[in-house]
Amino acid sequence: MKRTDNAKLLNVLGGGVERPPPIWLMRQAGRYLPEYRALREKAGSFWTMAMTPEHAAEATLQPIVRFGLDAAILFSDIMVVPYALGSEVSYEEGVGPSLAPVGEVGTLERDERVWSRKLAPVYEALRLVRARLDGSRALLGFAGAPWTLATYMAEGRGSQDQRAAKLWGYRDPKGFAAFLDVIGNCVAQHLIGQLGAGADAVQLFDSWASGLPESCFASWVVEPTKRIVDEVRRSRPEAKIIGFPRGATLKGYEAFVEQTGVDALSLDTAVPLSWATQIFGGKVTIQGNLDPIALLAGGDALKKAVAHVLDATKGIPHIFNLGHGVLPETPMEHVAQLVEQVRSDR
Amino acid sequence: MKRTDNAKLLNVLGGGVERPPPIWLMRQAGRYLPEYRALREKAGSFWTMAMTPEHAAEATLQPIVRFGLDAAILFSDIMVVPYALGSEVSYEEGVGPSLAPVGEVGTLERDERVWSRKLAPVYEALRLVRARLDGSRALLGFAGAPWTLATYMAEGRGSQDQRAAKLWGYRDPKGFAAFLDVIGNCVAQHLIGQLGAGADAVQLFDSWASGLPESCFASWVVEPTKRIVDEVRRSRPEAKIIGFPRGATLKGYEAFVEQTGVDALSLDTAVPLSWATQIFGGKVTIQGNLDPIALLAGGDALKKAVAHVLDATKGIPHIFNLGHGVLPETPMEHVAQLVEQVRSDR
Repeated sequence: MKRTDNAKLLNVLGGGVERPPPIWLMRQAGRYLPEYRALREKAGSFWTMAMTPEHAAEATLQPIVRFGLDAAILFSDIMVVPYALGSEVSYEEGVGPSLAPVGEVGTLERDERVWSRKLAPVYEALRLVRARLDGSRALLGFAGAPWTLATYMAEGRGSQDQRAAKLWGYRDPKGFAAFLDVIGNCVAQHLIGQLGAGADAVQLFDSWASGLPESCFASWVVEPTKRIVDEVRRSRPEAKIIGFPRGATLKGYEAFVEQTGVDALSLDTAVPLSWATQIFGGKVTIQGNLDPIALLAGGDALKKAVAHVLDATKGIPHIFNLGHGVLPETPMEHVAQLVEQVRSDR
Repeated sequence: MKRTDNAKLLNVLGGGVERPPPIWLMRQAGRYLPEYRALREKAGSFWTMAMTPEHAAEATLQPIVRFGLDAAILFSDIMVVPYALGSEVSYEEGVGPSLAPVGEVGTLERDERVWSRKLAPVYEALRLVRARLDGSRALLGFAGAPWTLATYMAEGRGSQDQRAAKLWGYRDPKGFAAFLDVIGNCVAQHLIGQLGAGADAVQLFDSWASGLPESCFASWVVEPTKRIVDEVRRSRPEAKIIGFPRGATLKGYEAFVEQTGVDALSLDTAVPLSWATQIFGGKVTIQGNLDPIALLAGGDALKKAVAHVLDATKGIPHIFNLGHGVLPETPMEHVAQLVEQVRSDR
């Protein structure tokens, strides 16, 4: 297995500074690419595509082939963990995942061998990508964080106010903590599995970390993440982990960095970079945080927004990325313009 | 016209400290109340209810009668300003307002006499409430802030990522600034009109202020708010104004207070009160920020969450409120429990 020790992104994850910074984009493998849409049609469904190693590997590599990005992130889905835990997940176009709501921790599958067997296609996809990726690109694995997965599992689908999970957490704090623990164990095993299958680093997506009172953020986001980081490090002491508690308050981001032990922090679009570089510069690598809607807008607005991110992060370990995923409607030319501008930074 | 100079809430808005703190709740007049649902049925539609002074006044007073809250906030809607600006607004149950998307500033109604005429039922409702409200309760008016109204007007409905407004702002910064200006003029006139009709203070709701890059927040939230505050104060120097840039970053909240001149800041649920009291204690009155889902949960979780807000705000000017509106599913008994607990604070 070829290792990517020379990848710029890994240097930056280790605290190095690179100019121009390495760049990848959340949801870089996605519907804005015609080759992705063609593959998606061939696969028949999103889930089939994600769980068929050859398809997933192909989708993973598409944006690397087209744009020469510095990292390939495995094409997969955060819902593979609920699937491993026993949920049947289905997808409706434009609506997102749905599953039978989970209201009790006792119903979750806890056998790690079952998890491994069900998640095997993800690891196989990583091995296929690893074998095809050149040594200057990093390969990233990922998982949803326990809180975000809990919001889907408790509600049975995505929700704007995370109501079902919050209600469970408020009414039955111990039961909900046990729920997050089981999810967290599966997430940790899944990250370890991905690192074992060739991922250079992993990102933990807590996409619904916004709107949480401080004490809930501490119990439901920070603590479960810390346990996962510790567990992954016990098995793989060198593992690089990127955390993304999207929409956390600035104090929340601070607590997250101080307490979880992540190597890098992915910032959402609203986080002021002047603040982030002052608070985190040197402590932890920063990733982000171009507005995906600036990328959708293109033109001068995109140029100015990219220049702002590049200027604000000079001299600190920084991975260029968006503050959230690429929108399906994004013109490919805008992505090309973005990559070119970042690459011409000195 | 009877003035409520003795209302606790006005003392706190002026920088005084009261224990127990005055309390009111965003969306305190709403579907969780059986008397509201009965009135809503009688009125036939939400819009008719809001624009019929007698109905609006009755809805405004319902939660005061039931819970004895310290402020009545006029039952109305943020969409009355787009209506004054020429939009036809319709409501679908459970979906929210919809209107023809606005893509050009030139189509907006700019005649202040037309605005006043269309908004007259709101002022009449305030006069009715004023005449019926006892002097220990404050009467609040409100309006949506220009950015939030722009997100509805550009999109034609509510949107999760405020895409249409952001795209407009990115692609045509000058045109979008002019759009916000016209909306802002109407908002300012509407607040002045409400203060003239008997409102003791007004709240400006920027419900979609989250997810904005720092420079967009400055241009689209802070600047338009400052212009409104200045305009209102020119006409009514003593006017008390509460700002609510929901979901702003902590740096955003700071900039908002430093630059807009509001008297009070309403905080969303995620803002740590320890941070807020340290940064704003003494500078500006704080309002908030109990999680509406803690209110929905009830029981011990509610009790603890209320105690936390009371403890964290001791010694500073504080108005007890939620971090967002009362949810329609909230049991009334939970609201009663909340009010009782706040009232027994010493």
